[in-house]
Amino acid sequence: MAKAPVLTPQADDFPRWYQDLINKAELADNGPVRGTMVMRPYGYGLWERMQEELDARIKEAGASNAYFPLLIPQSYLTREAEHVEGFAPELAVVTRAGGKVLDEPVVVRPTSETIVNEYFSRWVRSYRDLPLLINQWANVVRWEMRPRIFLRTTEFLWQEGHTAHATSKDARDYAARIHRDVYADFMTDVLAIDVVLGRKTARERFAGAVNTLTLEGMMGDGKALQLGTSHELGQNFAKAFHIRYLSKEGTEELVWQTSWGASTRMVGGLIMTHGDDNGLRVPPRLAPVQVVVLAIKGDEAVLAQVRETAGRLGAAGLRVLVDDRTDTPFGRRVVDWELKGVPVRIEIGPRDLETGTAMLARRIPGGKEPVAVDALAGLLPTLLEEDQALLLRQSRDRRVSRTSEVSSVAEAAEAAGAGGWARIPWATLGPGGEAALAERGVSVRCLVAEDGSVPESDDAPGTVAVVARAY
Amino acid sequence: MAKAPVLTPQADDFPRWYQDLINKAELADNGPVRGTMVMRPYGYGLWERMQEELDARIKEAGASNAYFPLLIPQSYLTREAEHVEGFAPELAVVTRAGGKVLDEPVVVRPTSETIVNEYFSRWVRSYRDLPLLINQWANVVRWEMRPRIFLRTTEFLWQEGHTAHATSKDARDYAARIHRDVYADFMTDVLAIDVVLGRKTARERFAGAVNTLTLEGMMGDGKALQLGTSHELGQNFAKAFHIRYLSKEGTEELVWQTSWGASTRMVGGLIMTHGDDNGLRVPPRLAPVQVVVLAIKGDEAVLAQVRETAGRLGAAGLRVLVDDRTDTPFGRRVVDWELKGVPVRIEIGPRDLETGTAMLARRIPGGKEPVAVDALAGLLPTLLEEDQALLLRQSRDRRVSRTSEVSSVAEAAEAAGAGGWARIPWATLGPGGEAALAERGVSVRCLVAEDGSVPESDDAPGTVAVVARAY
Repeated sequence: MAKAPVLTPQADDFPRWYQDLINKAELADNGPVRGTMVMRPYGYGLWERMQEELDARIKEAGASNAYFPLLIPQSYLTREAEHVEGFAPELAVVTRAGGKVLDEPVVVRPTSETIVNEYFSRWVRSYRDLPLLINQWANVVRWEMRPRIFLRTTEFLWQEGHTAHATSKDARDYAARIHRDVYADFMTDVLAIDVVLGRKTARERFAGAVNTLTLEGMMGDGKALQLGTSHELGQNFAKAFHIRYLSKEGTEELVWQTSWGASTRMVGGLIMTHGDDNGLRVPPRLAPVQVVVLAIKGDEAVLAQVRETAGRLGAAGLRVLVDDRTDTPFGRRVVDWELKGVPVRIEIGPRDLETGTAMLARRIPGGKEPVAVDALAGLLPTLLEEDQALLLRQSRDRRVSRTSEVSSVAEAAEAAGAGGWARIPWATLGPGGEAALAERGVSVRCLVAEDGSVPESDDAPGTVAVVARAY
Repeated sequence: MAKAPVLTPQADDFPRWYQDLINKAELADNGPVRGTMVMRPYGYGLWERMQEELDARIKEAGASNAYFPLLIPQSYLTREAEHVEGFAPELAVVTRAGGKVLDEPVVVRPTSETIVNEYFSRWVRSYRDLPLLINQWANVVRWEMRPRIFLRTTEFLWQEGHTAHATSKDARDYAARIHRDVYADFMTDVLAIDVVLGRKTARERFAGAVNTLTLEGMMGDGKALQLGTSHELGQNFAKAFHIRYLSKEGTEELVWQTSWGASTRMVGGLIMTHGDDNGLRVPPRLAPVQVVVLAIKGDEAVLAQVRETAGRLGAAGLRVLVDDRTDTPFGRRVVDWELKGVPVRIEIGPRDLETGTAMLARRIPGGKEPVAVDALAGLLPTLLEEDQALLLRQSRDRRVSRTSEVSSVAEAAEAAGAGGWARIPWATLGPGGEAALAERGVSVRCLVAEDGSVPESDDAPGTVAVVARAY
């Protein structure tokens, strides 16, 4: 008799597989308030590593971290017309505090453009203060009608960048720099997700932006997931919040702005890109634990060898964990590490001590073989880089093999409905075709140039729309 | 004529000096909602370094980070009677969300014991799951009647640890370990604040705790500031949230718990401990910027020397910043770095190029002298360690010289009123004397043993009460 699978197989029910994996790998639980989540230590550990890698790239791009209040006066939200229209239906409102009804209700931030720009207007005086490049790590709340753990939660964690520049070109260049050097670099090189970089159509743009750049990944079921966005805000918020500076020439000018964000949704994207029927597979460059060293039995000699091996691998710069929970059955521990997707398992038992070997099990390509313990520190860095490359290749292969070139709205809808992406000339599709697709639950994920670069405008010649069902 | 001081002198008006410093050093601004604050990049940079140092110590103590929701059902708060009584007056309540009135209002977390313990009750099954050691970095909201920036803000940032143990002794030992190895070690060795470790009286205990350990620092005006607390919760929350485990012996038992926190209030403590009439003085081990290298003029040769010097110091492991804003007057930049309390300034101008020297200005002991540029990388690490030690010594000297031994409630009140601390036998003071002091705005900051250690109980022989006015 075949063993009962640990998870619902992906092919049977992808959404249920996703939920099963999150529960059984102990990544997160649903919170008590509808749509909220509890990130458990292993799930939060993935997010901590994402923060660490993104934070370094954001600082490299010249931005500094700061922190703005969670609670925003309701009046701030209304200052930019499109912005309030976009966010009003999702707001959570504090009406009572300190035992009293508040005179003016305050909203829990759904994003921070309004409050940040109120302060930018106080801080920016002259061209010397520009560019002003700020990032914030924070929680935000958006009341979600159809919540989905990690992907669309009532509260989520993210970073949100907010910048002000002297010229339109500076702002545009900076939004593009974040899109490329921060987000695309991180997602491709660390998350091993083959993202498509493009611009959003007017319909899909951020509320208050003049241009939104996006990174879209193809998930295991062929749907698209937006993994990060970088907006050019033009002077919309500068006008609403009166952010002016004295130029070198002595004239008073409005600033040009950007904002950009990436969130815990990326954890969901990671799961749906690399997970398989045995659980998650974590790219080694991200993995909070790259190698777990397991004691098969609790003998002192085995434990000593386990600890020594782990110590040596740690000294070689790897992120290593010891599993010496020998009062839990070995098989259950193996299943647990497979579920959690730790790239490499090293298993050491009494018989390995005589031969000086250990069993090396690789989660990403699969397979298991005995290896001399002394060789591990030399071997593993290479294997982990191979694993990293394999995941990116698989992600790219999926995207390429499940993307089709089409030339009509009907064909595009059909391709997306069958679990894939379609590419169609934007000149053929247009806003009319986009609206027709939307009725069938299919959206334009982004516009790209023929050569794969990001087009300068929607109507640049040769612009192609990438359409798909999306999370 | 004497120069107008940059800040209100401490001796004239300490609270106003504090506010002036926070504004002029660009640490933080008041937020638009009463009692909230905006942490500006330099202020947030101090907090980031605190997080980094504390986080490493917390992980070293075996705890893992996780994240629990901001929004808590109101019903959770009421499950532990003392806890709800303590926090109810400070709650902010969301009553509307997603365009509708909520059926059950939700509170913005003032602390997370209730929601964390709801999940602990789901996660803990057997003795194998213990100890469960969780930490969270988060924002919390407490509606403050008398807000004060950094010290008592409506929203603040903190870490809150929550743990569950099999025995009372394990819980007690862990609370003490956090108190000593995480908080005291960090505050003494990194913040250079001479903290007194003690236990709170019943009156000052955390709502729901059976014992609260505290760390108290003496500020520049002789008042006390509580810088962190570590609580033994006994089985109060375990009973309220039904957190039971199956013991090795097969019996069902309630867990024993701790919780502990330290917050952005520490930034306020740092300012009031080390600041002087010229601004902040940041201990080098904490400082986000340990050395700033200033170009006096904008000549290419000067800029090249500035960058090369900064590069060499960075390579030597120092945290270095280049100040090449030569379109801002040099004197203004110097005042700015003095305000911000960067420990070392290196100033390089055209004349320094010929001699291969630079001006070395030290913020902490004061003073300025020319030094060979080539000698800097060798010299600075030693000077910075001297500065670090000096700050701790000054903090300790202040505490010792402004603490008096007294033997009556009247003397204690007088000493505290004069801007100092008093030590009085707890057997002499007792809860009655404590209540009498409270009427004069003086509180028992903590109880300590005669030898300076933390007493096992309030009535341990020889227990001494440390009393003071406090923030």
